[in-house]
Amino acid sequence: MLVIKAGGSEGISLEAVCADVAELVHKGQQLVLVHGGSNETNIIAEKLGHPPRFVTSVSGYQSRRTDRETLAIFEMVYCGKINKSIVEQLQALGVNAVGLSGLDGRLLEGPRKRSLRIVEGGRRMVLHDDYTGKVKKVNVNLLRLLLDNGYLPVITPPAISNEHEAINVDGDRAAARIASALNAELLIILSNVPGLLRSFPDETTLIHRIDKAGIEEFVSHAQGRMRIKMLAATEALQDGVKRVILSDGRVRHPVRAALAGKGTLIE
Amino acid sequence: MLVIKAGGSEGISLEAVCADVAELVHKGQQLVLVHGGSNETNIIAEKLGHPPRFVTSVSGYQSRRTDRETLAIFEMVYCGKINKSIVEQLQALGVNAVGLSGLDGRLLEGPRKRSLRIVEGGRRMVLHDDYTGKVKKVNVNLLRLLLDNGYLPVITPPAISNEHEAINVDGDRAAARIASALNAELLIILSNVPGLLRSFPDETTLIHRIDKAGIEEFVSHAQGRMRIKMLAATEALQDGVKRVILSDGRVRHPVRAALAGKGTLIE
Repeated sequence: MLVIKAGGSEGISLEAVCADVAELVHKGQQLVLVHGGSNETNIIAEKLGHPPRFVTSVSGYQSRRTDRETLAIFEMVYCGKINKSIVEQLQALGVNAVGLSGLDGRLLEGPRKRSLRIVEGGRRMVLHDDYTGKVKKVNVNLLRLLLDNGYLPVITPPAISNEHEAINVDGDRAAARIASALNAELLIILSNVPGLLRSFPDETTLIHRIDKAGIEEFVSHAQGRMRIKMLAATEALQDGVKRVILSDGRVRHPVRAALAGKGTLIE
Repeated sequence: MLVIKAGGSEGISLEAVCADVAELVHKGQQLVLVHGGSNETNIIAEKLGHPPRFVTSVSGYQSRRTDRETLAIFEMVYCGKINKSIVEQLQALGVNAVGLSGLDGRLLEGPRKRSLRIVEGGRRMVLHDDYTGKVKKVNVNLLRLLLDNGYLPVITPPAISNEHEAINVDGDRAAARIASALNAELLIILSNVPGLLRSFPDETTLIHRIDKAGIEEFVSHAQGRMRIKMLAATEALQDGVKRVILSDGRVRHPVRAALAGKGTLIE
């Protein structure tokens, strides 16, 4: 079992990801595709007059400010525009894709953060109307049901909270949960960088291989979004996934390249 | 088996539909929910600077002008905003809903109209870049798979063409196809009128019952959108559905009211 997460940053070619996915599926590889949509959400939110805002938690992680209106825009872009575009592309490539959000069949479930402690302009603030949370449970029965009947699940946030609200969750960490729930051999996380860089953004400082035992040390190298990716990788490995590859989603054959040794391999 | 179609016109309360659906599901009724989203699509399309346009075919049917950009907006609203909002509401009511478009698992498949002959300002024109079509095939295996495992399918256009393109299809006729594919006893079509009116828009002229044998005569009474609903009803009855009810989606308990004898019963 292989889980592929394709990020939603600018420059990542979902067309190229779909082509590689179809190639693998036609060779008999069982896989699940997880995707993001952050860049497109920013564009649509701007056009709809509800521009994106990002907040930094007191522990230093950046996330999208997700009020109820943002959530509706988020769903339009992730579950509507991008998910259905991927499903359409895969269908055209002969792959029987089924697109699902974490709400559908409670596919991705977890607690909503009742309050979000953030730092803004040096001041600490607490948000109570933010719809973000963390995936704790994956409906693996629904995934197996689809996989065993020849469907390829294409999965996107939001997830569903324990109190049945849609919640924005990190896509990389959701993919890590999905990979461990399915006992995947490998999780590939494709983004707009070549992998973990020793000195960001210098791409010549790519770290090719990290041993699972020494991963903690490397988390400190990570900057911005890469910190969450390293956290996702750590969680996946702790929960039984054998290998994680962080690789470049902007190249012509992103999945093929990752499988051929590009990017950062963590095992 | 019961199939409910909730329209997407202004005034139809999806919240009320969800409450009634949940009530029926908790009583053990197997059902499938199909929904529209036309009014919300108009609003979002306007905001995104790609205002809605409607065209009239030479045979007199009105439909949304669906170029590729409209299709993306259509997917955002139908598959993203509305579908996920319904799934979230049903989940909160204890119903394990799974939202699917016609693209997912090729759930709704049919031919795309290669050219659309329209009348505009008295002149005949032919459109070649319109993405509309007709559902001919329903993936009933996927629906049964979900239903047999305790999931409630929540289905929305677009469908998928035989050439794997997303196509805008009429939601009422898609619901009719789904109802006949599932050998449903009953199809309820909820819209923003109380049923078929002898003199539209005079709601006191509601026709309470139509015999299947005499349906042709009544099709001529129908105006605008109601003509397509009558066509959908005719198709459903021809393909084995026992009863069709056209009823009001704007009331407090739209499904309960339809089952209690409101609206137009066609059998």
